[in-house]
Amino acid sequence: MSNTQTLSNTETDSLNNSYFIKACRGEPVKKIPIWLMRQAGRYLPEYQKVRKGVTFLELCRSPELATEATVSAQERLNVDAAIIFSDILVPLVPMGLDLDFHEQKGPVISNPIRLPNDLERLSFDKITDKCPFLFEAIKQTRKRLQNHIPLIGFAGAPFTLASYMIEGKSSKNFIATKILMHDYPEAWHTLMTHLSDVLITYLNKQIEAGCQAVQLFDSWVGQCCRNTFLEKVAPYTKKIISGLTKNVPVIYFGTHTSHLIDDMITCGETVIGIDTQTDIAKVMSKYKGNIAFQGNFDPILLFASKKTIIETTTNLLNNVGHIPGYIFNLGHGILPETPVDHVLTLIDTINDWSASHL
Amino acid sequence: MSNTQTLSNTETDSLNNSYFIKACRGEPVKKIPIWLMRQAGRYLPEYQKVRKGVTFLELCRSPELATEATVSAQERLNVDAAIIFSDILVPLVPMGLDLDFHEQKGPVISNPIRLPNDLERLSFDKITDKCPFLFEAIKQTRKRLQNHIPLIGFAGAPFTLASYMIEGKSSKNFIATKILMHDYPEAWHTLMTHLSDVLITYLNKQIEAGCQAVQLFDSWVGQCCRNTFLEKVAPYTKKIISGLTKNVPVIYFGTHTSHLIDDMITCGETVIGIDTQTDIAKVMSKYKGNIAFQGNFDPILLFASKKTIIETTTNLLNNVGHIPGYIFNLGHGILPETPVDHVLTLIDTINDWSASHL
Repeated sequence: MSNTQTLSNTETDSLNNSYFIKACRGEPVKKIPIWLMRQAGRYLPEYQKVRKGVTFLELCRSPELATEATVSAQERLNVDAAIIFSDILVPLVPMGLDLDFHEQKGPVISNPIRLPNDLERLSFDKITDKCPFLFEAIKQTRKRLQNHIPLIGFAGAPFTLASYMIEGKSSKNFIATKILMHDYPEAWHTLMTHLSDVLITYLNKQIEAGCQAVQLFDSWVGQCCRNTFLEKVAPYTKKIISGLTKNVPVIYFGTHTSHLIDDMITCGETVIGIDTQTDIAKVMSKYKGNIAFQGNFDPILLFASKKTIIETTTNLLNNVGHIPGYIFNLGHGILPETPVDHVLTLIDTINDWSASHL
Repeated sequence: MSNTQTLSNTETDSLNNSYFIKACRGEPVKKIPIWLMRQAGRYLPEYQKVRKGVTFLELCRSPELATEATVSAQERLNVDAAIIFSDILVPLVPMGLDLDFHEQKGPVISNPIRLPNDLERLSFDKITDKCPFLFEAIKQTRKRLQNHIPLIGFAGAPFTLASYMIEGKSSKNFIATKILMHDYPEAWHTLMTHLSDVLITYLNKQIEAGCQAVQLFDSWVGQCCRNTFLEKVAPYTKKIISGLTKNVPVIYFGTHTSHLIDDMITCGETVIGIDTQTDIAKVMSKYKGNIAFQGNFDPILLFASKKTIIETTTNLLNNVGHIPGYIFNLGHGILPETPVDHVLTLIDTINDWSASHL
């Protein structure tokens, strides 16, 4: 399963037998593996220290700083996997989009694509050659992580990336995206095909550089109805997953996807990411043995009392923790204002549950 | 089924046999009944005219202006039902909340409730006595509407109202609401009980004043997971619906509710409102004959080309239009920037489909 020639046999064995990778394969484990989406984020003092004096994009583009953000978060939380510090929008910059991150507003693209002809000004050629910092960060991070801690690479899925390219920012209604999808189906197909091709290379290179798994973030795909997903989104997700050359676990994740889960599961991924609202017990009971499952804990509950965190975590684990192939995660990323000690309570609760139940 | 003593037998018969009311009862109709959430809204020149020179709340509180907004929208669109012009937040003002509407930001409550003790400063006594304008508007509107056009009353459901009372505005993450729900279950129960009691009277008075049906808008309930919905939301919805004294159709609606639909349907409503993302054909195939269905058309598609509007509407109707008990509506309210001629194209398409298929 492992990949880079720089890994020793011992390291490869250790990673192959890690809680996270075993759970991805649906194998029983002695401890529920844990990682948290956006675990290296603004809520964490270790992250704030790394981020000091540089912009968000500068941090993404510095292999040293990205490595430090990745490793320090994994070590601080003592979680079972690291995810390389980057952003799903990073590959849009070499395509010709002017991307900036505002502290409050989030990502802003000053020259979003609008009409179908706008596609012509984008470049999809050798995009990954223009992101050497990412692969270098992966190499450095792999060297610094302990032998039994897998490193996850990632990319935005084409629908979600396209929505940013078209809307120019986080969107509420996705008006321009839906217009392009429905009124200009050929332009949509062209854009999604280009993005898929770029993403295959982008993910393969992350795996080659040292990632033991990859996650496709289709964060906003839940905006699509089933027919739109099947016709205009799923074919590209499938294409990407089947285009990965090494046999590493692939996680496919989106939010507000209850109505799409059955179809998302047919896209070929190893692990399905479950949002906060979806009835995970129902999904796991239907698909256990066929796929692994990740997520579902509501990140908003990290703002509630520790008592609530312990109760809701225990309820979740009592429901699904005994089923092989479950990876603990949130239903969406940690918010910047989340209290760190609440996150540590969450992790302690899961580990305590594992110790007494597995 | 009808109600007010001011209605003649002819009117009552005509309303009872209207397309909308028949579809609510699940009976076959010769024409798919149509109404659109927020049909009397900012996108409409008729509305802009009524709104000129008054604030949004002044419009809600003027029986004459609210009547004009309600009737002019129904007439302009020539739809099969009117919904009284008001806002779900109107009853919060006499409870002691300082409500204002900002043109861009939407509703803002300057004194939201935060801690459980904050509940004590709210009043839940004789709230409906302090909203006489609404019942007067209903009376005037009923007189002006044609005999075959039912008038729909409405209220926000308690979860959605509570979320505004707690967050003070439209929320993205519902942090304060979820903290109250989970950390202070007794305070939550008290709040939901008070709101339910107020809403029973509020809806009963709307029915007495001349409404032939009512809709409960639980717009943000989709944020809840299934367990939270069952434990902390559904009991109050059920209480309200069972507390209505006249036997008029009740529509229960929320957005992003795919994971809750099965449980929402058990709340006792006559009609389930279907959001944009839910697979309506699947829901209707499962529950047809037991309940009626409303909605599902994506309001964002009204920004696409007329060709797209015609195609997507026709696809929806080909899927579900033959099943008795379907009321055409959107999956959420019309947006302010929606082109009126696109809305008219939508309505023409549905009526053409009815003429050739029913």
